[in-house]
Amino acid sequence: MQASTHDIEWMTRALRVAAQGLYTTTPNPRVGCVIIKNGQCVGEGAHLKAGEPHAEVHALRAAGVQAKGATAYVTLEPCSHFGRTPPCADALVRAGISRVVVAMQDPNPLVAGQGIARLQAQGIAVTVGVCEAQALALNPGFIRRMTLQRPYVRLKVAASLDGRTALSNGVSQWITSADARKDVHHWRAQSCAIVTGVGSILQDNASLTVREVHTPRQPLRVIVDSRLRIPLDAKVLAGGNALVAYAEPDITKLESLQQMGVRTLHAPNQQGQVDLSALIQALADLPCNEVLVEAGATLNGAFLQTGLIDELLLYFAPKLMGSAALGMFALPALTQMADVRDLNVTDIRQFGQDIRVSARLKT
Amino acid sequence: MQASTHDIEWMTRALRVAAQGLYTTTPNPRVGCVIIKNGQCVGEGAHLKAGEPHAEVHALRAAGVQAKGATAYVTLEPCSHFGRTPPCADALVRAGISRVVVAMQDPNPLVAGQGIARLQAQGIAVTVGVCEAQALALNPGFIRRMTLQRPYVRLKVAASLDGRTALSNGVSQWITSADARKDVHHWRAQSCAIVTGVGSILQDNASLTVREVHTPRQPLRVIVDSRLRIPLDAKVLAGGNALVAYAEPDITKLESLQQMGVRTLHAPNQQGQVDLSALIQALADLPCNEVLVEAGATLNGAFLQTGLIDELLLYFAPKLMGSAALGMFALPALTQMADVRDLNVTDIRQFGQDIRVSARLKT
Repeated sequence: MQASTHDIEWMTRALRVAAQGLYTTTPNPRVGCVIIKNGQCVGEGAHLKAGEPHAEVHALRAAGVQAKGATAYVTLEPCSHFGRTPPCADALVRAGISRVVVAMQDPNPLVAGQGIARLQAQGIAVTVGVCEAQALALNPGFIRRMTLQRPYVRLKVAASLDGRTALSNGVSQWITSADARKDVHHWRAQSCAIVTGVGSILQDNASLTVREVHTPRQPLRVIVDSRLRIPLDAKVLAGGNALVAYAEPDITKLESLQQMGVRTLHAPNQQGQVDLSALIQALADLPCNEVLVEAGATLNGAFLQTGLIDELLLYFAPKLMGSAALGMFALPALTQMADVRDLNVTDIRQFGQDIRVSARLKT
Repeated sequence: MQASTHDIEWMTRALRVAAQGLYTTTPNPRVGCVIIKNGQCVGEGAHLKAGEPHAEVHALRAAGVQAKGATAYVTLEPCSHFGRTPPCADALVRAGISRVVVAMQDPNPLVAGQGIARLQAQGIAVTVGVCEAQALALNPGFIRRMTLQRPYVRLKVAASLDGRTALSNGVSQWITSADARKDVHHWRAQSCAIVTGVGSILQDNASLTVREVHTPRQPLRVIVDSRLRIPLDAKVLAGGNALVAYAEPDITKLESLQQMGVRTLHAPNQQGQVDLSALIQALADLPCNEVLVEAGATLNGAFLQTGLIDELLLYFAPKLMGSAALGMFALPALTQMADVRDLNVTDIRQFGQDIRVSARLKT
C-alpha cells in the first residue's frame, strides 16, 4: 500500500508525540503512535520510560473501541518480542487495527522486521518508510547501538569566531550567550552520558548537570582522568552519578571515589592515557544511547582522532580572542591541505548573536 | 510631502540601477535615478564613471519631454555644484520635474543639503529619506571619506571552522570553495585598494587581481612590506597598479619598484614597522573609497588593533585543521574575558558548504 500525504501528516504528528520521551526513554528508543479513524485522531501516545508501556499501548488505551478498523501510525516498527512488556504487534491485532503505517523498521535484532511480518500474517495492511529520515534522526543513539554496538557521540565546542575556546590562562566563562548555553543543556538532557576531561574540571569546576531544561533524568558524568587528579570535592562528583576513567591506578583515590558512589573504569592505552575507544565501548555497554563530549582542545583532538565522533556541535560567539588563546582541536601538525579533516555541514542556526554549526566528519 | 509605498518601490528600482556602477564610479558615489510619470518609468540611469554624466542626466535624457511634470527618484541628493559636470539640481529644474524623492542627503560638504534647497527654491516638492538605510549601504566608502576623511575598510579572512587560515608550514591553498572565492572577487571589485602583507606574498605569490567577476577597473594592490622584502618578480607587482608601503628604505629596491611603475610609501612607525593608520590615511587621500584587507594573522591582528576596520568578512570552510595550524588574528594574550573583542554579526550566508559571517567590531 502506498503512502499518501495524509500518511505524512499523521506520521509527523506521531514523531512530535514521540519527542515527549526525548529525555527519558533511554536505553529504549523514543517512539510515538497516533491512531486515526475516519480522518480523526482517536488516540495517541509516546513511550516515556523503560519498563513503562510502549507508545502503541498508550494510544490504543486512549482510542478504546474506536481502534477497531482504524489506522495506527507508529514511528518505529511495533515490537514482536516479550521484553518488560508484551509484544505491541499483538496488541494492535487484538484491538482490531486494520492498517499500520511504520516510519522505520526496528534495528533491534530481536525485532528487525518480525513485528511487521507478525502484523501482515494477521491480514493487516502495513506501509513502511513514511518519514523514515525523521524517524532515524529521532533515535541516532539507539540505532547506532543496535547496529554497531556503539553509542552516537556528539562533540560540542563553544568558541569565539576565531576558533578560540579559552584565554591562554584557561579562562573561558562565558564565551557563548545564555541562549546558546540553554541549547547545550537540551543536548545534555538527550544524552545518557556527558564526557569531559579532568583539565576542564580543574579549570572550571563545572557540575555538568542539566539545569536549563526540565528533565527527571540526569546523564552520567564521565571524567577522563588518566592520573586520577580529580579533587574529591569537584562539583562534577557531587551526588554520585559520575564515572572516572583512568589509566594509572591510585588505590586510595579509587576507594574514596567508590565510597562516594562514583564509578571507576580502568582503561589504559599503551601511552598511559585513557583509551577513548575502550571508554566509548564501556558506555555503549552500560547502555548509553547518546553521548556528549564537552572537553578542551586536547581531549577534543584525541576524540576526533578515534573516528568515534558522529556529530559536531560548534557554537560560535561574536567575539575575537586572538591567536594566543586556546584552540578547539589539538591535532598533529599537517603538511598538506589534502590531509585536513573535511566536514559536512548539516545545519546552521542562530541563538541570538551566537551561531551553531552542526557538522559530521566526512569519512 | 510624505513617502508612499510607491516611493519605496521606485526608490528600490533606483537603488538597483545605481548598482550598475558598483565596480566603477570611484572616487564618486554610486547613484541611480528613475523618472516616473503617471505610474510608468519613463527614464532611468546610473552614474557609471567619474567624469561621465551623473545618474540624473542619463535618466533625463532617456525621459526626454516626458520629464515635464514627472517625479524623479534619486538615491543621493542631486549635486548643486559645478564639478566635472554641471549641477544636476539645475538639470532637473530645467527639465520640468515637479517632484524629487531623495534617498539620502549628500555627505559631500560641497553639496550637503544645498541640492535639495536649490530644488525647493524652484518650487519643486522634495521628499528625503526614502530607503535611506539601503542608500547608505550602497556607498559606505564614499560616505566615510566625506564625513571622516577615511576609507571604509573591510577585512576578509578565509579559515577552517576551527579558525585556521593556513597549515603550520604556511600552506593555505585552498581552504574555501570556488563559490566563496568568487564572492571575495566581488568584494575586491568594489574596492579601490586591496591590502596584503609581504609574508602572504612570499608564501602564496598571489596576484590579488579581480578575475572571477567582470570589471573594467582593477583595484590598487597594496603590500605592507616594512623591510622591502618583496621580490621584483612577484605577481602582485606585474603591470604596476601596486603600492608598496615600507618602513626601512632600500634605495636600490625603491628605484627598481618605481621603474616598474609601482608606487611606494614611506610610512614608518616607532617600532620600525609600517604605520597602518598612516597607510590608511594615504589611501583615503588617493582617494580610495573602499579598502579590502586580505592578509595573514599578524597583519590582521595589527589592523584590528588600529581600530580602523569597519567590517569583517569571515569565510569558514567545512574543515578542521587543528591547533598547530595558523590562526586568524594575532593579538596580545588576554587575561580576562571582559577584554575580548566583541562583534556584531550583521549577516550569515552560505556559499555551498562554506559559511560567510559578516560582522562589525563593537565600539
